[in-house]
Amino acid sequence: MDRIEKMEIRASLAKGEKEVELVLKNCKIINVFTHEIHENDIAINNGKIIGFGDYKAKKYIDVKGKYVSPGLIDSHMHLESTLVTPQRLAEIVVPNGTTTIIADPHEIANVLGVKGINYLIDSSKDIPLNIFFMIPSCVPATSFEDTGATIDYKDTQELLKKDLVLGLGELMDYPSVINGDKEILKKMELAKRKIVDGHAPGLMNKELNAYMINGVKTDHECATIEEMKERLNRGMYVSIREGSASKDLKNLIGGVNEYNYRRCLFCSDDKNPEDLINKGHINYNVKLAIESGIDPITAIQMATINASECYRLRDIGGIAPGYDADLLILNDLKTFDIHSVYKKGKLVYNDNKILFETRDIVDESVRNTVNIADVDIKDLVLKLDSDIAYVIGVKPFSLITEKALRKVSINEKGEYINNEYLDICKMAVIERHHATGKVGLGLVENFNLTNGAIATTISHDSHNLVVLGDNDKDMLVAINRIKEINGGIVIVRDNEVKAELKLDIAGLITDIPLKNVEEKLSEMLEYSFDELKINRKINPFMTLSFMSLPVIPSLKLTARGLFDVDKFEFINVSKK
Amino acid sequence: MDRIEKMEIRASLAKGEKEVELVLKNCKIINVFTHEIHENDIAINNGKIIGFGDYKAKKYIDVKGKYVSPGLIDSHMHLESTLVTPQRLAEIVVPNGTTTIIADPHEIANVLGVKGINYLIDSSKDIPLNIFFMIPSCVPATSFEDTGATIDYKDTQELLKKDLVLGLGELMDYPSVINGDKEILKKMELAKRKIVDGHAPGLMNKELNAYMINGVKTDHECATIEEMKERLNRGMYVSIREGSASKDLKNLIGGVNEYNYRRCLFCSDDKNPEDLINKGHINYNVKLAIESGIDPITAIQMATINASECYRLRDIGGIAPGYDADLLILNDLKTFDIHSVYKKGKLVYNDNKILFETRDIVDESVRNTVNIADVDIKDLVLKLDSDIAYVIGVKPFSLITEKALRKVSINEKGEYINNEYLDICKMAVIERHHATGKVGLGLVENFNLTNGAIATTISHDSHNLVVLGDNDKDMLVAINRIKEINGGIVIVRDNEVKAELKLDIAGLITDIPLKNVEEKLSEMLEYSFDELKINRKINPFMTLSFMSLPVIPSLKLTARGLFDVDKFEFINVSKK
Repeated sequence: MDRIEKMEIRASLAKGEKEVELVLKNCKIINVFTHEIHENDIAINNGKIIGFGDYKAKKYIDVKGKYVSPGLIDSHMHLESTLVTPQRLAEIVVPNGTTTIIADPHEIANVLGVKGINYLIDSSKDIPLNIFFMIPSCVPATSFEDTGATIDYKDTQELLKKDLVLGLGELMDYPSVINGDKEILKKMELAKRKIVDGHAPGLMNKELNAYMINGVKTDHECATIEEMKERLNRGMYVSIREGSASKDLKNLIGGVNEYNYRRCLFCSDDKNPEDLINKGHINYNVKLAIESGIDPITAIQMATINASECYRLRDIGGIAPGYDADLLILNDLKTFDIHSVYKKGKLVYNDNKILFETRDIVDESVRNTVNIADVDIKDLVLKLDSDIAYVIGVKPFSLITEKALRKVSINEKGEYINNEYLDICKMAVIERHHATGKVGLGLVENFNLTNGAIATTISHDSHNLVVLGDNDKDMLVAINRIKEINGGIVIVRDNEVKAELKLDIAGLITDIPLKNVEEKLSEMLEYSFDELKINRKINPFMTLSFMSLPVIPSLKLTARGLFDVDKFEFINVSKK
Repeated sequence: MDRIEKMEIRASLAKGEKEVELVLKNCKIINVFTHEIHENDIAINNGKIIGFGDYKAKKYIDVKGKYVSPGLIDSHMHLESTLVTPQRLAEIVVPNGTTTIIADPHEIANVLGVKGINYLIDSSKDIPLNIFFMIPSCVPATSFEDTGATIDYKDTQELLKKDLVLGLGELMDYPSVINGDKEILKKMELAKRKIVDGHAPGLMNKELNAYMINGVKTDHECATIEEMKERLNRGMYVSIREGSASKDLKNLIGGVNEYNYRRCLFCSDDKNPEDLINKGHINYNVKLAIESGIDPITAIQMATINASECYRLRDIGGIAPGYDADLLILNDLKTFDIHSVYKKGKLVYNDNKILFETRDIVDESVRNTVNIADVDIKDLVLKLDSDIAYVIGVKPFSLITEKALRKVSINEKGEYINNEYLDICKMAVIERHHATGKVGLGLVENFNLTNGAIATTISHDSHNLVVLGDNDKDMLVAINRIKEINGGIVIVRDNEVKAELKLDIAGLITDIPLKNVEEKLSEMLEYSFDELKINRKINPFMTLSFMSLPVIPSLKLTARGLFDVDKFEFINVSKK
């Protein structure tokens, strides 16, 4: 049926000339356009809301006076942080009321470039969840790492033509934006008819003016009410983030008032499997906001129509004729307890049961991304010029590391050797995209890892292979196992793989259910703490995944060597 | 300078590295994003707001604590009703604070088609006023008239590609929309990525559902709060109209509240020269709203950011870095008294003085549109089959006419002759676009026109030549004079042209100053009342201009003959 025929049928149905597929009777409709509750029936056909009123239908469902909300929108999310495919993610977030996600596929783009983004776009079809995309603006994030791919001007230009692409992703490289770097400005100019997302933690006053003057329209990095207000005052939309790493909602919600809320949205940014399962998704932002004193309808507006307006979505985020029938039936408004979820008019979640199936992934080419040159145990030997070395000092609950000087043990050849009395481990970063053979070696303290090794292919932003251990043999076993399984997280002890999570899609995500991922990760975390004696104040997997990001102070390790972020240069591990 | 260079310079200026062109000091900035007042300086360069704060500038202007508002937006206007070109219109509306108009060039499109629209688009360049366009959706409005041109599917498709074109104009033909007429749906489908304007007076419930289900996003035809609420509840934007013919603001403003106002806009629709001069433009809507109890900042939001959001304008409608520096300095907030106007950073109006000049129109091809076959006095003879005739009954202050049966005088040949004791005149509609020679003849009562004739080329929607008189000789003189001057309004008495307003651009507008138009019209109106003894309850020019519109009940005359709108068919003047 062509589009015009569909339009004809819709008009006829709306007039009441034919039976619609479904009528939800006795709804308390949460009207996000007017901040009111209306008692009415909702007629639905072929995924669309046909109208309010008394319609004849093939099927009636009496919701018995329950509240009906539009489906929720996450205005900024890195899907890859959930460790699962869009299909698997839908199984978790849809029951939590999310029907639309605006994704920034920054991680997969660093591994697979355009191909990775297209894989996610393709995977987002045929699931009961809209996924829109922002094109990552900073791939690679720095020139001090080896990424798997880049997203250049031409790529950006092509990707921006796609319907599901809403604009340019978070401009993390805010110095370049402020300083008018031509390459970044050119990308911004490309996206000028779409949306350009910001990412400007702490920027204020003139720097903020300079950051946004060329079209940055959103920011989700506010940590204080002052930052939020400075942005709202300048006409930016502020997305209030409640993620796994960054939890800003309670700090910011006090700055939301009846007049500025129309430009406040919700996002999760990065959300791990555990939090998704235990806390939920954007419904958690809604709940927290209500608990913090925000009117429930206002909170729902922030999670729906406000995001729709900001990102210029069409027919999403409200309950009205012509809108997608993405609807949540609530058991209770104040606790935002979701009884059932309709996606494009289909009941996809009801009374604690998921009612949809997702198709398999067919694109095998995204599964073989761990391409490393053979690593010999000799490659892990760290030669020092002295026994005084720079060590990366890990701090609990922080991505920032310390640059520490420590006396370490070396053998007669000047090679670093592990000393069981010191809380220092060896770390290696192995370029894993193009088998260049690059191996960066360094030292890390405060992990307290004992008798074993942990390896992961999640390492922001380039996602090379990072391995940490107190002995080279276990490290090598871990490296080889990662290669075998095409990416993921591996724990080795006594030359044996003791636990692993295979993340064979781009080395970042998997297509097993999120619940299984969460269980596996939980077991692995327990093993790390119980057997490897890892410092319980540190999540080893998450911490390792940021050890390679040379834009966060103070000392990081890439496949090219030890990087002093404060000096912005590579340094020798040994203090000569 | 290319775009990227401009962006570089902007970023540098915003950082404060160079002097900006202008700083407005000590502003009370009306923040339409947050509904707050901020005291700050505004830095401006090359048409853009660079930032707030302490900037070095080549020039400082101290506004001494005055309020600064964004320029106002008329969200729906037929420019042609002002009788002047965009250049001349700017001279009037800019001092009234309008910096953006969303125009629906329905009238000129009926005369000149795509060429007429392109002429207006071209004329809107180089004036201190943004004019965006909606493509008229209903040209011709009916199949019972002869228009000068049509806007078909292909034309619509091409025009929608233009940057200044925001979408599809008001869907006046609501029966076709509701009934799923393929031709209108096809145009709507074309515009689905832009905005589709509605026009649905009185439609409610299921008919309203059917009207909007295929993407109609706005309506400016609400006359009651009930209508307005039905539309807001369904996610439509409601533009509150205060024009010359339709004055809805006082009826609707009571329905605006703190929660739904974000989806309420202002428009004028049709505004005549007299009202523009005496009352103003969108500032008049703002003033009336404030007088009716709306908070001044809320009223300003409705006139600025709300329209910008609805029509997805970029960098217009607010005061923020990167936005166009379209600014109004107010003497007083509550009376919205405008002291000066900046358009893209240039002072264009200050202290009752206009500070801009407009360029001349160069396109002569839009001036020769009165193309009529020679009319002989015999062509004005109305033959009747009896002395009982259907007469168009004009009513004061209404576009609706009555279908009256009257006994009239005829001569021995059965030809209608004027009877000085009856308030009945002859009316002729002469096809004037393609010299087809079509002349429609009919009778009209209640004008009380005595000893003379009035002719006009403004006659909705086809804008053929309409002439009214009590004697054929004066009517003929008027017709010939209209032909000579290429359109306008002409008054004839005793075979002499007594007064005229030349509207030689499309027969609809002129490039003389609006003030002169208003003076001329005023004199002509006086002449009509004083000398032609026209019924003072009727504005003869406006009334005549709607005598030919066969979509408004009950009886109208087109070049094809007398049309019974209720029966939707042509009828004979004489009751046989």
